[in-house]
Amino acid sequence: MQAKYPEDSRTTLTDLVLPSETNPLNNLFGGELLARMDRAASIAARRHSRRIVVTASVNHVAFNKAIPLGSVVTVEAAVSRAFKSSMEIFIDVWVEDRESGQRSKANEAIYTFVAVDETGSPVNVPPLEPQTELEQKRFDAALRRKQLSLVLAGKMKPHDATELKALFKD
Amino acid sequence: MQAKYPEDSRTTLTDLVLPSETNPLNNLFGGELLARMDRAASIAARRHSRRIVVTASVNHVAFNKAIPLGSVVTVEAAVSRAFKSSMEIFIDVWVEDRESGQRSKANEAIYTFVAVDETGSPVNVPPLEPQTELEQKRFDAALRRKQLSLVLAGKMKPHDATELKALFKD
Amino acid sequence: MQAKYPEDSRTTLTDLVLPSETNPLNNLFGGELLARMDRAASIAARRHSRRIVVTASVNHVAFNKAIPLGSVVTVEAAVSRAFKSSMEIFIDVWVEDRESGQRSKANEAIYTFVAVDETGSPVNVPPLEPQTELEQKRFDAALRRKQLSLVLAGKMKPHDATELKALFKD
Amino acid sequence: MQAKYPEDSRTTLTDLVLPSETNPLNNLFGGELLARMDRAASIAARRHSRRIVVTASVNHVAFNKAIPLGSVVTVEAAVSRAFKSSMEIFIDVWVEDRESGQRSKANEAIYTFVAVDETGSPVNVPPLEPQTELEQKRFDAALRRKQLSLVLAGKMKPHDATELKALFKD
Amino acid sequence: MQAKYPEDSRTTLTDLVLPSETNPLNNLFGGELLARMDRAASIAARRHSRRIVVTASVNHVAFNKAIPLGSVVTVEAAVSRAFKSSMEIFIDVWVEDRESGQRSKANEAIYTFVAVDETGSPVNVPPLEPQTELEQKRFDAALRRKQLSLVLAGKMKPHDATELKALFKD
Amino acid sequence: MQAKYPEDSRTTLTDLVLPSETNPLNNLFGGELLARMDRAASIAARRHSRRIVVTASVNHVAFNKAIPLGSVVTVEAAVSRAFKSSMEIFIDVWVEDRESGQRSKANEAIYTFVAVDETGSPVNVPPLEPQTELEQKRFDAALRRKQLSLVLAGKMKPHDATELKALFKD
Repeated sequence: MQAKYPEDSRTTLTDLVLPSETNPLNNLFGGELLARMDRAASIAARRHSRRIVVTASVNHVAFNKAIPLGSVVTVEAAVSRAFKSSMEIFIDVWVEDRESGQRSKANEAIYTFVAVDETGSPVNVPPLEPQTELEQKRFDAALRRKQLSLVLAGKMKPHDATELKALFKD
Repeated sequence: MQAKYPEDSRTTLTDLVLPSETNPLNNLFGGELLARMDRAASIAARRHSRRIVVTASVNHVAFNKAIPLGSVVTVEAAVSRAFKSSMEIFIDVWVEDRESGQRSKANEAIYTFVAVDETGSPVNVPPLEPQTELEQKRFDAALRRKQLSLVLAGKMKPHDATELKALFKD
Repeated sequence: MQAKYPEDSRTTLTDLVLPSETNPLNNLFGGELLARMDRAASIAARRHSRRIVVTASVNHVAFNKAIPLGSVVTVEAAVSRAFKSSMEIFIDVWVEDRESGQRSKANEAIYTFVAVDETGSPVNVPPLEPQTELEQKRFDAALRRKQLSLVLAGKMKPHDATELKALFKD
Repeated sequence: MQAKYPEDSRTTLTDLVLPSETNPLNNLFGGELLARMDRAASIAARRHSRRIVVTASVNHVAFNKAIPLGSVVTVEAAVSRAFKSSMEIFIDVWVEDRESGQRSKANEAIYTFVAVDETGSPVNVPPLEPQTELEQKRFDAALRRKQLSLVLAGKMKPHDATELKALFKD
Repeated sequence: MQAKYPEDSRTTLTDLVLPSETNPLNNLFGGELLARMDRAASIAARRHSRRIVVTASVNHVAFNKAIPLGSVVTVEAAVSRAFKSSMEIFIDVWVEDRESGQRSKANEAIYTFVAVDETGSPVNVPPLEPQTELEQKRFDAALRRKQLSLVLAGKMKPHDATELKALFKD
Repeated sequence: MQAKYPEDSRTTLTDLVLPSETNPLNNLFGGELLARMDRAASIAARRHSRRIVVTASVNHVAFNKAIPLGSVVTVEAAVSRAFKSSMEIFIDVWVEDRESGQRSKANEAIYTFVAVDETGSPVNVPPLEPQTELEQKRFDAALRRKQLSLVLAGKMKPHDATELKALFKD
């Protein structure tokens, strides 16, 4: 299959924060943001693979910045690395201040999707070719994240996670 | 503050999978499950702290098992360890087969919440005292997970994550 | 069919009251509570019968206690008596005060469900065997309620509702 | 206060049955219908009282007729009797066959609402004056229903429910 | 096919404005009103044609009056003219003041629907026969609107829109 | 106020078509698309004005292309002309075929928003300066559309709508 670029799958979902999505402090529920990111990421995975895609995993996500009711939130998702039938999707979340119009980073997240056929069996996806420096950096880091994921799932021994081990050696 | 038990915060959310929550394979969207788990976990965190709570992070979550339309899904959340103002919540997700009534594990997830006052500033929470063997095991593992979280957030050097380093040494 | 216990069907649905479910006094709409109770009760009926179940009736429900926005509401449903193909479900609703953590009874309700096959025709369900004193009391009262229901539906003459008549004799 | 007619509060809510409101047989959930009826009845009670109104109780409701996905459902609510601060609302539910256009009765229900001020305290409502024969019949029956409601709530002794007792005497 | 009257398709959808449908000024979103009007209009079109109907177009809609949170909104739709397989639906929107009970016009809109068979191909619909003066006036104006619609879609030359041209001549 | 470019307000909302948004032919309801376009357009208007914005009107919208369940729909909105306190927003809707990935135009629409302060009074907005050829074309046409809107609202005599009259002269 012919390689694709991150640009080919880039998906933008800009929308408001509505009252039914906020907690008692009037900020967006973490869980609602996770659901929006899943929808944007699933579209990116589908654009890369042109297949039915299902969420395989979500990497560690930190919520460092409250997103108030009425904010404009932009979720941007793009495939950051493609494996055999799975794709890592990198997601950037931006929030805009209404008065100044200033846009600031609210969150980052990494989801993994698998492409499947109508019976739910995995199918191959095209390779990904990074173009920008940032895309290259995310592409490289994806291997370490895949190892971490396999280790946490008990499918790879920490000993064999060579990329990951390097991080923790003295 | 007086210690509490995991049992004091245990929260059960049993509900159906509705058509508006399913993907083209008629299985529950990963993002919807993440949102349900966030709601159950936030209630558990609130029961432990009796405070307003906000999602601080979600650990790596793997979706190994499809949950079909019409399933009965049970999300069980309980505090697994309390730190100064943050709480780790362990979540088990079960799905039931309608005909056999058989209940099987569909997912596990770990969310972290922070207790805050009305202005959003962190406040202290009671310590947690595990009682069962499983609760003790999850309590012990929570420290390693907190270190991993700090490392991934760049707030702790891998070198100092002693609990974690142990995992990767030869 | 082998008898089942109320415990086998007990269903707990703990969830928050969200802004889209509240009236101008910022309390949960009665209708939303009725819908949540229906979902919990339908799961209990399904757990007892392992069949598709449809709502047949709702007994008189009184709303004595307002449930404010942001409350944690717990709906607990369990089969209280099984007839040929119908099941009476007893539902208890609890609401928790965030600060004190105190749990108080907000509502009781009784729904009746019928088990059906894929064509919608009624099918038999297992008998129910009460175990605790409360379960026995609810089991006994179910017969009177069934008679009342038949009388109100015009399917039984008040004269023949012997259990019920006893209540009104001098 | 000047008396009002049932016509003054008559409220019609015609809408479609959507996929997110249906059970595994593709029929409208009983609980969703209860919620729609509550919304229509609350508007009728508000039109009669011009006050904030809250659901006080729901009488026994039987679901005799399945309402399939895509149906047009009409919920008609009107005040059937006014007491001091409470109002009984009679609700008729109709469903239309798409091809023949035939309209058939799907349900009847009776809700009671209480008019309150901004602090939630009950306030008086205008009396109701029935005009048609059907309105008069429902008006008369409302007293018996109120007695039944008080008996079931333990606020009136069966012995004193004279209207109701008449029904059960030999 | 036998002609029908506007009365045969008249559809009333009275409902509350809920918090999840309001903008930062606590007024109903224009888009939500457009969606409600579409649902009411589609039921009117279906009642006239007894067919599956799909939205073909929406005429210019002006939002002159804010509709606040908690309002009772009544959407009334009826077929105003039938063409071969398309129907023009005239929609009146009323809003009620809670305290005075006064009902005022909030909006008017005109939607066009096409009747189709199961494959989506257009099918003929019955002619419409106006009865009241207002119905006749709307019926007459419908032809001018259809010409305007065709001109705007580039399917009719302004020169040939005789009804419309008359409006703009000196 | 300093002029802004259409690019400054361009808003992209890419999302899936879910089951709860589809008609009996499994295509997106027209009304749901109108609501999505309103949300995207309101964000564009807000980005241009940095004010609270409310929908003032929607121009004629034609639905020429069915959008099936599960489609990826992209709504792109940008300010096309700014008047004193109102802004015209041009919206393009694209739909993607899952297998071929081919993107085709599904709809165009034009909404007008007004910028207001916290009391709902209109406030001035920056002028718009078109940059591309398409933006210039839409900018020029906006004046004709404003005249048509004023004529249809009875606020301008057809005789005075000079831009518009030109269209209909022999």
